[in-house]
Amino acid sequence: MKVLILAAGRSKRMNPIKDKNFLNFLGKPLIKWQLEMLKEAGLDDVILVGGKHNLDDLIDLTQTLKMDIEVVEQKDLNKGMCGAILAAKDKINKEEVLIFSSNDVVDKSAFELIQDAAARGDADSYILGKKVVEYFPGGYLEVNEKGLIRRIVEKPAPGTEPGDMVNLVIHLHKNSEGLITALESVKSKKDDLYEVALDNLIKSGMKMKAVSYEGFWQPIKYPWHIHKIFRYLFDKSNKGIGRFTDIADDATIKGEVIIGNYVRIFEGAVVNGPVYVGDYSVIANNALVRNCHIGQDCVIGYCSEIARSYLGNDVWSHTNYIGDSVIGNNVSFGAGSVTGNLRLDEYNVLFKYGNEKIDTGLKKFGLVCGDNVRIGVNTSFMPGVKIGSDSFIGAGVVIGKDVPENSYARGKFELKISKNRSTADKSDREELKKKL
Amino acid sequence: MKVLILAAGRSKRMNPIKDKNFLNFLGKPLIKWQLEMLKEAGLDDVILVGGKHNLDDLIDLTQTLKMDIEVVEQKDLNKGMCGAILAAKDKINKEEVLIFSSNDVVDKSAFELIQDAAARGDADSYILGKKVVEYFPGGYLEVNEKGLIRRIVEKPAPGTEPGDMVNLVIHLHKNSEGLITALESVKSKKDDLYEVALDNLIKSGMKMKAVSYEGFWQPIKYPWHIHKIFRYLFDKSNKGIGRFTDIADDATIKGEVIIGNYVRIFEGAVVNGPVYVGDYSVIANNALVRNCHIGQDCVIGYCSEIARSYLGNDVWSHTNYIGDSVIGNNVSFGAGSVTGNLRLDEYNVLFKYGNEKIDTGLKKFGLVCGDNVRIGVNTSFMPGVKIGSDSFIGAGVVIGKDVPENSYARGKFELKISKNRSTADKSDREELKKKL
Amino acid sequence: MKVLILAAGRSKRMNPIKDKNFLNFLGKPLIKWQLEMLKEAGLDDVILVGGKHNLDDLIDLTQTLKMDIEVVEQKDLNKGMCGAILAAKDKINKEEVLIFSSNDVVDKSAFELIQDAAARGDADSYILGKKVVEYFPGGYLEVNEKGLIRRIVEKPAPGTEPGDMVNLVIHLHKNSEGLITALESVKSKKDDLYEVALDNLIKSGMKMKAVSYEGFWQPIKYPWHIHKIFRYLFDKSNKGIGRFTDIADDATIKGEVIIGNYVRIFEGAVVNGPVYVGDYSVIANNALVRNCHIGQDCVIGYCSEIARSYLGNDVWSHTNYIGDSVIGNNVSFGAGSVTGNLRLDEYNVLFKYGNEKIDTGLKKFGLVCGDNVRIGVNTSFMPGVKIGSDSFIGAGVVIGKDVPENSYARGKFELKISKNRSTADKSDREELKKKL
Repeated sequence: MKVLILAAGRSKRMNPIKDKNFLNFLGKPLIKWQLEMLKEAGLDDVILVGGKHNLDDLIDLTQTLKMDIEVVEQKDLNKGMCGAILAAKDKINKEEVLIFSSNDVVDKSAFELIQDAAARGDADSYILGKKVVEYFPGGYLEVNEKGLIRRIVEKPAPGTEPGDMVNLVIHLHKNSEGLITALESVKSKKDDLYEVALDNLIKSGMKMKAVSYEGFWQPIKYPWHIHKIFRYLFDKSNKGIGRFTDIADDATIKGEVIIGNYVRIFEGAVVNGPVYVGDYSVIANNALVRNCHIGQDCVIGYCSEIARSYLGNDVWSHTNYIGDSVIGNNVSFGAGSVTGNLRLDEYNVLFKYGNEKIDTGLKKFGLVCGDNVRIGVNTSFMPGVKIGSDSFIGAGVVIGKDVPENSYARGKFELKISKNRSTADKSDREELKKKL
Repeated sequence: MKVLILAAGRSKRMNPIKDKNFLNFLGKPLIKWQLEMLKEAGLDDVILVGGKHNLDDLIDLTQTLKMDIEVVEQKDLNKGMCGAILAAKDKINKEEVLIFSSNDVVDKSAFELIQDAAARGDADSYILGKKVVEYFPGGYLEVNEKGLIRRIVEKPAPGTEPGDMVNLVIHLHKNSEGLITALESVKSKKDDLYEVALDNLIKSGMKMKAVSYEGFWQPIKYPWHIHKIFRYLFDKSNKGIGRFTDIADDATIKGEVIIGNYVRIFEGAVVNGPVYVGDYSVIANNALVRNCHIGQDCVIGYCSEIARSYLGNDVWSHTNYIGDSVIGNNVSFGAGSVTGNLRLDEYNVLFKYGNEKIDTGLKKFGLVCGDNVRIGVNTSFMPGVKIGSDSFIGAGVVIGKDVPENSYARGKFELKISKNRSTADKSDREELKKKL
Repeated sequence: MKVLILAAGRSKRMNPIKDKNFLNFLGKPLIKWQLEMLKEAGLDDVILVGGKHNLDDLIDLTQTLKMDIEVVEQKDLNKGMCGAILAAKDKINKEEVLIFSSNDVVDKSAFELIQDAAARGDADSYILGKKVVEYFPGGYLEVNEKGLIRRIVEKPAPGTEPGDMVNLVIHLHKNSEGLITALESVKSKKDDLYEVALDNLIKSGMKMKAVSYEGFWQPIKYPWHIHKIFRYLFDKSNKGIGRFTDIADDATIKGEVIIGNYVRIFEGAVVNGPVYVGDYSVIANNALVRNCHIGQDCVIGYCSEIARSYLGNDVWSHTNYIGDSVIGNNVSFGAGSVTGNLRLDEYNVLFKYGNEKIDTGLKKFGLVCGDNVRIGVNTSFMPGVKIGSDSFIGAGVVIGKDVPENSYARGKFELKISKNRSTADKSDREELKKKL
């Protein structure tokens, strides 16, 4: 069986974080985690559909893996899943095909379940339905008493869901030829060509079965999903401390941690798991790192607290608070700069996407910062703002709105200078010093 | 003997701190401390005079105490002590009465002294005179060679004091009927009806004796008196650490401390007594708390220093310096916010009351913050400013003047954004990291 | 032999740091270090040429030393070295003279080398030539095959140097009478009377020999030279910890340190040598001091990091980052104030001298602060700025340009205050507290 991985999306909602497929988790890009999981589930004949923006990276990656992977380019990204499958038509070569979107992170058991269902041979296609306990704004599977899908209902209003199974893009089609024929002729004015084609196939008598899945599922669509993915991948990885580390006697390491090679941890630092620290990173004096992903070559400087955040590689902090934030690669924070992560009114943090303000659903959410950013001292970021890649942010400013990529943003300060009429008396200091 | 407690004052000078009677010290409101002390001094037949604003609270409180307390409302608060006594006329019921203002905190011995003096029976009234060693801006007792009071001199100019005894409102009147008659007919255009009535009684031949007191006395009038009251009550309380606490091995606790139940103290924290920490509070990593009252359910966050301050309940700090400050209940400080507590010129800190600027007499005095306040990150408070209750203070601002209650105060920031013409080079980092 | 020390310079390039001769290193003024070193090299017959601004201090100093020192005033400072030597003419009294500028710090061996060379008696004058491996913007010695100097080439363009020996002002003249005669008649429109006189002497047949020196040499001209001088003097001093110190058990002291008497070091502090700490100074909780000179009576407050900096006496920090900086005497930093020490673009830091911007040659360089300065809370200093002595700097400002001495510099803040329409809800706190 072929596995077709849809990896051509441009990750626009993740901006300023780049292609989610190549976001590193625990030292490995997400797409590699996905491919390895497929292999573990016995699926190693893969067609990887990329876009122009990540094709080379995908090809490079596949060289390093012992799997049978073909990379295909989807030229017209506007045609979504339909376009991706048609782009891979020749590679599918009329074989059975399992379609999987790299936008979803699931447990290996999801693939085992759908393969087991298909082995029973009682339908033409199998669609994974994730059981939800509360409303989710996605497509729901309307299923009859025999488990056959009547139709896929896109984003029903809350309370009108036709069941508790959300359509998860893990679709196994035994008759790929029929699917492709349907896709080649389907028409829709919306971004749902693939779903309409499935509907058409159902109407024409094709049997599609829902396969109920109750395991882990996390779409990775917005930056605040990153930490959840980190936690999932962390939890299923081996814990421990690498080689050639240098950890001060009075540093504290507690909870579950994965600490890479050549990591240095200085006096008074606290690493409070779950925490991942990549190779060559430094956790300096009195720093506190808790529930975090710290990439490699990072320096978490003196008296910095990093909490519930994802940091890429080469991030340097220095007496900062970075909370509930997502920080790309090659970023520096000047001393005293702080990511606000809680609104004064404690409402959910909003996140601007295009002209929309999206409710993150989170009371606590901080900064999203792209790659190659330098931040001055004593600067403050309001909850949910984004700093575009390749930007410099000046000292002492309050960043209350998004900064586009390749910007130099600084404050406008007016200083009044007059003659000093007082003197700096030090006579009380002896007394003050005694009280210390 | 009846004890009449004057507790109807509106604590205007304490603003934004509410009714001082219900300010909690070591988990107990001040008025309760006062009542318990009276009971220990053998005085448990009490009339508590409140005002409309605190009557219900006073009544609620008395339910919980095993004392014989009647609560009376003083309707016209402008009539001061005179009005309070007349409001309680029926309850006094012509018995001996000891009048005590809840504005003063004194040692139990003050009450024992005045009862002992009255037991000797050589006068009609007894007035406690606090011996002072330096000028105090209050009423002084002018006393003859037999210890009898000639008159009370209100706020004499410094150097013209008629002795060293200040009139402390612990007054024992054997003939309450005579006092009440005098109060009912007294006239004055100033806020001194009670004192004028006493003067009239002296002139008409009533014998009033001064009882000299050398123990602790601290009026609680302005917010900077709160810490002194804390220290007095702390010193006379049992020290120790409560039950179900969780204190990290490498946290430091030194000096005298009272730490409540369920308190958690994290790695690297230092609690340097005298310190009180209420139940369920958390002292997080590397925090330093010294010479402080920390109420219950507080979180003193990572790398916060709290020094010589009073914090009510539910105060959350996070990488802050809070020095010589008074903070109400349910207050949060964003990371990096700081209370300035020393003027640059090191003059005494001034405190605005109405249109006046009052010299606190203190080189070091910080912020006075009411209840239900949220403060953003990296904000600075100038020494002696007040933040009214139910207010939000934005990020990155300098608060140099009082903020009224129920305000939203934030800065006006101008950001210049231009195209970034530099790149964030990371080539030197390897070298820099070696030097860490 | 007489040693003539040129110490009349006004240290203008060091501004706002005052007379470099009296800058204290390890508790001792630089000029004293120089004089002691001369004595160790067998040179204790000294003429010290000062200016009006430091004459009294020089005289006071010489009283305390067991050396034969005469202090002479140079009236016309514009005449430079020539003026200095002529001012000392009578004291030189036609003896051999070794001229040494107190602007240069060298190893004792420099003086031994030049004395040894002179002992061989093969020339009239001996000039120390410091061997350099890369271009230095100073005077180069053009030397013939016999080691005799042809001329001194002032600041040749890079690549046109006549050799690898830079003229270091350690000049031994056997015939001081001849030198003085030459100086008395020399003429130049530039600030090079002495050098022209030497040239004239060479032309008239006087033999001057270059003495090659490969030891330590550091001119002290700009503030960033101070740390290098500190490191040199530190390295050659005895290490250890003084008497009557009070060092907490869980403080960390590592690397080479010189810690004075009565120093107190609190819990969690880290002193990471090379570090000098003067008498009576305090390193408070969780502070980090690394590669620093901390004068006496300093307080390095809670959670302060002081790195690669020189602090004079009576400097108080409190939750600051002071990096790569030079701080005078009697200076206080408010909590949260930070010295930026790295440009966002990571170019070399520039330093303003007059109307020029001088490249410090350093990626990392912070603040230069004079004496008697008070700095508010949460203030930010941009790399390379100077704060003049006797100045106050307000809270929450960004100091991006030099502040002249005796200034009061503060920000202009606009605060918007409106009615607060939200409430400070504390209902989620129980949940948040559990996660701590």
